[in-house]
Amino acid sequence: MAMVQLSDFEAYAKKYLPKIAWDFFAAGADDCSTRDENILAYKRIHFRPRMLRDVSVMDIRTKLLGTEISFPLGIAPTGFHQLAWPDGEKSTARAARALNTCYITSTYSTCTLEEISAAAPGGLRWFQLYIHRNRAVSQQLVQRAEALGFQGLVLTADLPYTGKRRDDVRNGFCLPPHIRLKNLEGAFEVCKMNPLDPSVTWNDIYWLKSLTRLPIIIKGILTKEDAELAVRHGVQGIIVSNHGGRQLDGAPATIDALVEVVEAVHGRVEVYLDGGIRKGSDILKALALGAKCVFIGRPALWGLAYKGEEGLQEVLRILQDEFRLSMALAGCASVSEIGQHLVQFSKL
Amino acid sequence: MAMVQLSDFEAYAKKYLPKIAWDFFAAGADDCSTRDENILAYKRIHFRPRMLRDVSVMDIRTKLLGTEISFPLGIAPTGFHQLAWPDGEKSTARAARALNTCYITSTYSTCTLEEISAAAPGGLRWFQLYIHRNRAVSQQLVQRAEALGFQGLVLTADLPYTGKRRDDVRNGFCLPPHIRLKNLEGAFEVCKMNPLDPSVTWNDIYWLKSLTRLPIIIKGILTKEDAELAVRHGVQGIIVSNHGGRQLDGAPATIDALVEVVEAVHGRVEVYLDGGIRKGSDILKALALGAKCVFIGRPALWGLAYKGEEGLQEVLRILQDEFRLSMALAGCASVSEIGQHLVQFSKL
Amino acid sequence: MAMVQLSDFEAYAKKYLPKIAWDFFAAGADDCSTRDENILAYKRIHFRPRMLRDVSVMDIRTKLLGTEISFPLGIAPTGFHQLAWPDGEKSTARAARALNTCYITSTYSTCTLEEISAAAPGGLRWFQLYIHRNRAVSQQLVQRAEALGFQGLVLTADLPYTGKRRDDVRNGFCLPPHIRLKNLEGAFEVCKMNPLDPSVTWNDIYWLKSLTRLPIIIKGILTKEDAELAVRHGVQGIIVSNHGGRQLDGAPATIDALVEVVEAVHGRVEVYLDGGIRKGSDILKALALGAKCVFIGRPALWGLAYKGEEGLQEVLRILQDEFRLSMALAGCASVSEIGQHLVQFSKL
Amino acid sequence: MAMVQLSDFEAYAKKYLPKIAWDFFAAGADDCSTRDENILAYKRIHFRPRMLRDVSVMDIRTKLLGTEISFPLGIAPTGFHQLAWPDGEKSTARAARALNTCYITSTYSTCTLEEISAAAPGGLRWFQLYIHRNRAVSQQLVQRAEALGFQGLVLTADLPYTGKRRDDVRNGFCLPPHIRLKNLEGAFEVCKMNPLDPSVTWNDIYWLKSLTRLPIIIKGILTKEDAELAVRHGVQGIIVSNHGGRQLDGAPATIDALVEVVEAVHGRVEVYLDGGIRKGSDILKALALGAKCVFIGRPALWGLAYKGEEGLQEVLRILQDEFRLSMALAGCASVSEIGQHLVQFSKL
Repeated sequence: MAMVQLSDFEAYAKKYLPKIAWDFFAAGADDCSTRDENILAYKRIHFRPRMLRDVSVMDIRTKLLGTEISFPLGIAPTGFHQLAWPDGEKSTARAARALNTCYITSTYSTCTLEEISAAAPGGLRWFQLYIHRNRAVSQQLVQRAEALGFQGLVLTADLPYTGKRRDDVRNGFCLPPHIRLKNLEGAFEVCKMNPLDPSVTWNDIYWLKSLTRLPIIIKGILTKEDAELAVRHGVQGIIVSNHGGRQLDGAPATIDALVEVVEAVHGRVEVYLDGGIRKGSDILKALALGAKCVFIGRPALWGLAYKGEEGLQEVLRILQDEFRLSMALAGCASVSEIGQHLVQFSKL
Repeated sequence: MAMVQLSDFEAYAKKYLPKIAWDFFAAGADDCSTRDENILAYKRIHFRPRMLRDVSVMDIRTKLLGTEISFPLGIAPTGFHQLAWPDGEKSTARAARALNTCYITSTYSTCTLEEISAAAPGGLRWFQLYIHRNRAVSQQLVQRAEALGFQGLVLTADLPYTGKRRDDVRNGFCLPPHIRLKNLEGAFEVCKMNPLDPSVTWNDIYWLKSLTRLPIIIKGILTKEDAELAVRHGVQGIIVSNHGGRQLDGAPATIDALVEVVEAVHGRVEVYLDGGIRKGSDILKALALGAKCVFIGRPALWGLAYKGEEGLQEVLRILQDEFRLSMALAGCASVSEIGQHLVQFSKL
Repeated sequence: MAMVQLSDFEAYAKKYLPKIAWDFFAAGADDCSTRDENILAYKRIHFRPRMLRDVSVMDIRTKLLGTEISFPLGIAPTGFHQLAWPDGEKSTARAARALNTCYITSTYSTCTLEEISAAAPGGLRWFQLYIHRNRAVSQQLVQRAEALGFQGLVLTADLPYTGKRRDDVRNGFCLPPHIRLKNLEGAFEVCKMNPLDPSVTWNDIYWLKSLTRLPIIIKGILTKEDAELAVRHGVQGIIVSNHGGRQLDGAPATIDALVEVVEAVHGRVEVYLDGGIRKGSDILKALALGAKCVFIGRPALWGLAYKGEEGLQEVLRILQDEFRLSMALAGCASVSEIGQHLVQFSKL
Repeated sequence: MAMVQLSDFEAYAKKYLPKIAWDFFAAGADDCSTRDENILAYKRIHFRPRMLRDVSVMDIRTKLLGTEISFPLGIAPTGFHQLAWPDGEKSTARAARALNTCYITSTYSTCTLEEISAAAPGGLRWFQLYIHRNRAVSQQLVQRAEALGFQGLVLTADLPYTGKRRDDVRNGFCLPPHIRLKNLEGAFEVCKMNPLDPSVTWNDIYWLKSLTRLPIIIKGILTKEDAELAVRHGVQGIIVSNHGGRQLDGAPATIDALVEVVEAVHGRVEVYLDGGIRKGSDILKALALGAKCVFIGRPALWGLAYKGEEGLQEVLRILQDEFRLSMALAGCASVSEIGQHLVQFSKL
């Protein structure tokens, strides 16, 4: 079977993963409206492509907080990669490094940060943090990540509690015994209670800053008000995200929310986006609306499920090729030529 | 089978209730457009969730005309509960009391008001009234309800005649012999003629006030003009309702009509809503748009059909949990923090 | 099988009519977009129903150019009723008279005007005219109609040529030998050439006026410009119509076009509508938007196909009952209380 | 089987063409959104038809850059006609001449320009050009076309690289050995590399002008900015096109883009359109919105696949008849009467 488009990997993963793992990765909250809107919203954005521009030499590189990546797409934090592939996050790290892009490693990794670092030395990685009730757990994680060379700290802001994912409730989702949250060994039992701290507020950004010199990126922002607060509290980046539609069902599609966040931020910090990226032209739309970079969640897992590191590399390469082609067909030879003039929201 | 979401109860009821009963409960008028719009309209409202607020202690209580209930959802008046469960309205009353919420008991109950009161002493109940051609029947009902401790009188305004529910016409819907409208014994024969008085006008509010000291809540208002009239005639509450889409097909979804009613009322009386509530985030949307509380009709019947009092408690608990979670994920720790800033109507 | 709603008659007709006849009646032009839009457009109009008005005594009568009819619905001109029922237009005339409403008799009737008049003496009838190349044919028809007591002359303006109805082309639609256009006997051969005059212009209204003292109603107007021209040329009524979607596919739904026509006419002449009326509340919407009366085409044929005069009476009675109920549920006790305040166009 | 509408030819072609050829002709880029939007967009445009105008004598002729054609529809450039019919572009040229319309011959023809000219001497033809990396190839083609009597040069602007057509990737699409790009013999190997020059810019218009005295029409313009540039660089015509949705998926439907191009051009050059024309009324809509003429791509191939020259003539005649009828039903007796007043965009 030829792997031509991302849904080929999705179909593969759905077919070969255990149902409980597939359901967990695919899950959205409640009716899955937001999960599905993330994808549909792109269809309501049309291009205004420009013709007869010299696109013989294409430059699709960009920079994340000053570090160059090969194209404006990275890997969003998702948990439990060993559910998709035995080598888990080690494969993810290798694939990201091979394509020279950024991998945001989840607190809920099934390999240790040390294993991940060793698997792909020199790769650009950010560490995603959930703040635990036991703050010492979080402090130790942050400091381990910094010491291991992670270059950014991504604070997830939209999970004070876990969203209601109906299939997971029905399945009684729980990690199988051989897969463990290795970075949290002994810290808590994942299926038994919520170890995350729902009392976290903006002031905790200051606490994080006291722990580390890493730049802080906040993930899960959907409104201009919170974007303004993020800037004021000194974050270096914002990821517009609704957690893949897994938290508050009814939250807007991220590409729709991006517009108000970008306007509020007004260039003071970098703005990224995750959710619903399924082809190269989606990346182009997000960049046209002001995102500096986008991140993929589920498609990375499908790539892992297909062939581990190699499968994920295929996914990334397809997106890279499609993005380059979309740029050229829209008349942009480099990322710097992408702007809002390139898109319009459909009246429908 | 795990009961995870309200549609699980719906599927159960559809499977196990006699067809004629299911059809009666499910019926909408004409093409059922309004019935279905009640649900669809929620999908066009998006949240603007706020992050990093302390939601470790959640307070989801509210007050109905000064009386505290455990969360802003009560049970709308629906008739013939014995069609769903042998104990009928007695089970409904017990479940409502167990969850500490309000049960609006219908004129068309299949248990007497006395039986219902005895089944759940101390529960918060309002009495729903249809005004009969024979005013003495209505007067007696109001005074019995007041004497039994009902704390509000809900006047249904949208049923001068019964809407055309096609399946009921086809089925020749009629109560089976063992089920009776016990509160109206002898007063009329339900299948033979329309005993309700289609000449009722706003002036009859004054007549009701002469009968009782109970606060009067008017149910079935959909326009700002009628909302203004309701306030001027001295009601204490308004339920925005289209009778579950069972009366005038083509009436707007209640969540859409809520906006103009809330604006017209401008805080002078409490505004509630029924119709289309199927998950916790629907409650949150209605509150964000100005409802003080919402009520469920069909989902309560599904709960009864599943396991009587216990089944209805399950339904209520699911909604309570989902509402609490939605609030937290939207960044609200108490009902008082919910406001219009939390939602936006989709452009689509 | 109970006949509860108009689509019950439709299903019957589809099942029992010869395919070629069903196809002819059902046909729309090209993709049938306009035919289908006629119906769908009603779903985008919502009511703003008013409560607590005395609707104990309902008056649904109205007047067509001064003549009272039992409710604001008449029978639109359609051809070839013998394809639906052996007695053809005689049955139609009887049913219309029984319900005390207006029957617009088509030039393409399969009974003579004399037979129709004799079948239902005293019934209110208008005569629909196509202007033929041979003007003598048309003149004779108009004068026969006037002499027979027809009370209005309906000029169809939207058929200079016949629209492309694909199924009729495929079927090679032609009348069976035993059915004839009796009013045009010898005048032309219907399947062989187009006998209608595509050179007709507004000036021909003056010619018609020279032939008859009957009021002239023009059928097929969809724009404010033509509405203005119609008034200036002295017609007494306008039927907003797109010929049931059988002529120009892509023409607007009649309920949508009604708004601009009513605004342009500004009460100077009566405005009617046909197309898409399928339930009583559709009539109410059309009246709220300014129509004085509506007409049904295909549903009348379904009624005929079901049981001739009796079947059509059933169709008319269902619409009458539904219209009365809709009015009551919207808070209107008489037709004079219906107004634009009663409806709003959905934002969707 | 009667051939009544264009989709009859489509169904035939789908059934009888080899899958790889059908897939190639049918292909759109990525999700085929733009390909499908080209068609759907017409459904959102409604007519405002005018009545009682003399349409007894219809004149549907128009002029392309001064040359009369029988109606405002020509044949868009598409490649590889021998995939559809053995005689390939020779049949296309004959059918176009028979209907007295314009055939834009593709660089990727499978007959030589000389063969095509000889097959239908005197027919109106324009030559479509892709500019090759090897400019000598292009220069030679332009000069051959001019010498052979082609009357216009159509520069395709939207194909610096080929769009991603997933089915072609899966099929490994390549011409069969017996079909060759005869006009490019020896110049390159079509499946091996991209011979087109992605560095072409507006300045190359000047280079083309230095090669030929033919009028230059630019194809693939979708924005007002590029329309303005086209006029400034001295083209004589603009074809609003998204390459049938085969290049940048997410580009707007051409009928939607037409509006801004026509407005920007303001009559300085002729504006044409291709994409999504499937019936006569589509042509009328495009003309009402300012197109001077439209072109068909896939429908011409379906006609060829059906019966070669004869099949394509049938397709053209159906469109001609439907266009004439639409004009008459909209109240226009000649093309000059078509204007923007004739259409409105649906609010939906």
